[in-house]
Amino acid sequence: MKEQDKPSPDAIFDALTGYQKTAAMKAAIDLEIFTHLAAGPATAAVVAKRCGAAERGARILCDYMTVQGFLTKTGDQYALTKESAVFLDRKSPAYAGGATAFLLSDELTGAFESLSEAVKRGGTVRPNEGSIAPEHPMWITFARAMGGLMVPGAHGLAELIPLDRQRPARVLDIAAGHGMWGISFAKIFPNAHVVALDWEPVLEVARENAHANGVANRFSTIVGNAFDVDLGRDYDIILIPNFLHHFNFTDCVKFLKKVHAALKSKGHIAISEFIPNPDRISPRGAAGFSLIMLATTPEGDAYTLAEYSNMLAQTGFESPTLHPLPASINQAIIAKRR
Amino acid sequence: MKEQDKPSPDAIFDALTGYQKTAAMKAAIDLEIFTHLAAGPATAAVVAKRCGAAERGARILCDYMTVQGFLTKTGDQYALTKESAVFLDRKSPAYAGGATAFLLSDELTGAFESLSEAVKRGGTVRPNEGSIAPEHPMWITFARAMGGLMVPGAHGLAELIPLDRQRPARVLDIAAGHGMWGISFAKIFPNAHVVALDWEPVLEVARENAHANGVANRFSTIVGNAFDVDLGRDYDIILIPNFLHHFNFTDCVKFLKKVHAALKSKGHIAISEFIPNPDRISPRGAAGFSLIMLATTPEGDAYTLAEYSNMLAQTGFESPTLHPLPASINQAIIAKRR
Repeated sequence: MKEQDKPSPDAIFDALTGYQKTAAMKAAIDLEIFTHLAAGPATAAVVAKRCGAAERGARILCDYMTVQGFLTKTGDQYALTKESAVFLDRKSPAYAGGATAFLLSDELTGAFESLSEAVKRGGTVRPNEGSIAPEHPMWITFARAMGGLMVPGAHGLAELIPLDRQRPARVLDIAAGHGMWGISFAKIFPNAHVVALDWEPVLEVARENAHANGVANRFSTIVGNAFDVDLGRDYDIILIPNFLHHFNFTDCVKFLKKVHAALKSKGHIAISEFIPNPDRISPRGAAGFSLIMLATTPEGDAYTLAEYSNMLAQTGFESPTLHPLPASINQAIIAKRR
Repeated sequence: MKEQDKPSPDAIFDALTGYQKTAAMKAAIDLEIFTHLAAGPATAAVVAKRCGAAERGARILCDYMTVQGFLTKTGDQYALTKESAVFLDRKSPAYAGGATAFLLSDELTGAFESLSEAVKRGGTVRPNEGSIAPEHPMWITFARAMGGLMVPGAHGLAELIPLDRQRPARVLDIAAGHGMWGISFAKIFPNAHVVALDWEPVLEVARENAHANGVANRFSTIVGNAFDVDLGRDYDIILIPNFLHHFNFTDCVKFLKKVHAALKSKGHIAISEFIPNPDRISPRGAAGFSLIMLATTPEGDAYTLAEYSNMLAQTGFESPTLHPLPASINQAIIAKRR
C-alpha cells in the first residue's frame, strides 16, 4: 500500500484535541492578538509587548494560530488573514470575538461534559430541562454576545418579506433575545412597529439595541414565556428566529397554532433556523447543530424543510418557501396564513 | 464581490466549538459506537440498541460523526470509514480510542483552561511545574493509554539503527513510560538487553508490556528522575523518546552531556520527537505540539532540527540525521557519539 493510501489517525487526534483549538482561539481573542496585529505585520516580541504577554507565549500561540489558518507568517512576522481582519479585530464592524461569552459559557461547555449521558438519555442531562428552563440566564449572555452576528442575516430576512414600506405594519419577534431580527425589520420598514417577546432581563438587552438603532419609538415588548403569554393579535408578520429548534415536533405544532391565531389573515410567518437537508448530514453547520440541541435541550432538534412544512401544513399555513440568508448558517422559511 | 469570495467566519466558529467535536468523539468512543458498527452498516435504532442509548441520541451523534467524516451514511444506514475501522473499533489491533484517557485527562484539559495566563507567563500555570513535576501521576495514565500507538513508530526507529542483530547490545530507554520504544528494540534485536528508566509506578506498566511482548528476560529498569540518577554506562544505543521537549535548551544540553558519558564510544543516540520545520508552522502536527508544551511545562518546546543539531554538536555527537517514522507524527534524529 502506498504511504498516502494508508489510513491515518490524524483526523481522530484532531477531534480529540479540538478543545485545545478552542482554548487557543479563546486565548488569542482574550489577549486581543488579532486587534494588536490589525496595524500591520509584527514579530512575536512586538505582539508580546502589545498584549502584555511573554515572548515565548506569544510566539507559540501565534505559530499555533498560523498552523490553524487564522494568521499568516512570513519570516518572523505574523499578520492577519482576510477572515481574522474582518471577524477578530475588535475594531472591525463584523467583530465576532464577543461570541465566546456565549459559545464558551459554562452552561454550553458544561452540557458537553456529559455528552455520553445525553446520548444515552436522548436529551440533555442538565437540570431543569437545560437551556429551555424558565428565565435561564444563558439567554441574557446570548443576547449580549450574539446580536451583532445576526445583523446581516436579519436584514436579509427583512428584505425577503413582501410588505409595503409605505404602510403601517405590525411585527411580532418571538423570543427576541438581542432583538436584532425585529429591529432589522423596523429599520427597513419605516412604518413597521415591532413587538419583542422574551423574558424581562433579556428584553433589557433588546430595548438597548432598539435605542442604539434609533427605532425605540416603534418598539414595544411582551414579557414572559412565549408558550404561555398572550401574543396579541393582527400582526402582519411574526418572526420566529432560532426558537422552534429547542422543542419537540408536537410542541412546535402547538406553538405554531398559537402564532396562526395571532396573525392577520394573509399575514406571514418567517422562521429563521438551522435547516439540514433531508440526509441530515449536510450542510455541515446546520446538520451539526442538532448535537447542541441533544446536549442542551430535552427534545429539540435541527428540523428539515419537510418537517417544518409538515408542521406548517398542520397549523394553517400555506406555500412555505426556503431562502438562504446572507452571512449566516441560518436559512429562512416564509409561509402565509391561510 | 462574489459570494464565495466573501470572508466567512465558519472556520472561527469551528475553532470556538472545537470542544464540542472533542466531546462528540469521546462520547462515540465511550459508547463504542464504532465497535458496534464494525459488523456492518446499521440504522440509528440498531446502534442505539447495541450501545444502550436512546435512538434520538444515537441518531444525532451518528449524524454529527458523519458530518465530521468519521462515519458514512447511506439512506438511514451508518457505516465505518476506513480510518474509523482501523483506529476506533476496539477489536482492531491499531485501536487508538484508549488515547482519550491521556489526551482528555484532567491534567491536560485543565492546563488548557488557563491558556491565556500561560501565554502571559510564557509557561504553564499548573502547580509544581506542570507535567514535569516529580512522580506526576499523568505519566502513569500516559503509559497505560499511549503505548500501543507508539509501536509502529518504535519498530521503525529500531529498523533505522545500524546494530548487528547477532551480537549483544545494551540499550537504554530514557523516560520509558509504556516502554514500547525499548521493547521494540528488544524484539527486533534478539541479543539486545534493554534498560528502561522512569519513575517506579510508570515502570510497572513498562514491565507488564515487556512480559506481554516476551522480552522480560532481556529487560531491566532504573528507577528515578533521568536528570538525577546514575544512568549506568557502555550502552550501544540510548533512546530518548519524547522527553527533551519538556525542558529548556540549556537543560537539554545538560542532559545530553550525561547521555554522552553513558554511551560507548561510537554508540548512537536516537531521539524521537515532534520536530517542526524551521518556519515552526509546518508540518501541522509537530508545529502545533509546542502549544501543549506552553500549556503544560515551564519552558518546554517543539525544537527544530537545527536546534537539536546545535544541542548535539555542543555535547559530543556527530552526523545527526533526520528520519520520518511510520504511522507517527514523531520524527527521529540519530547521531553518533564522537
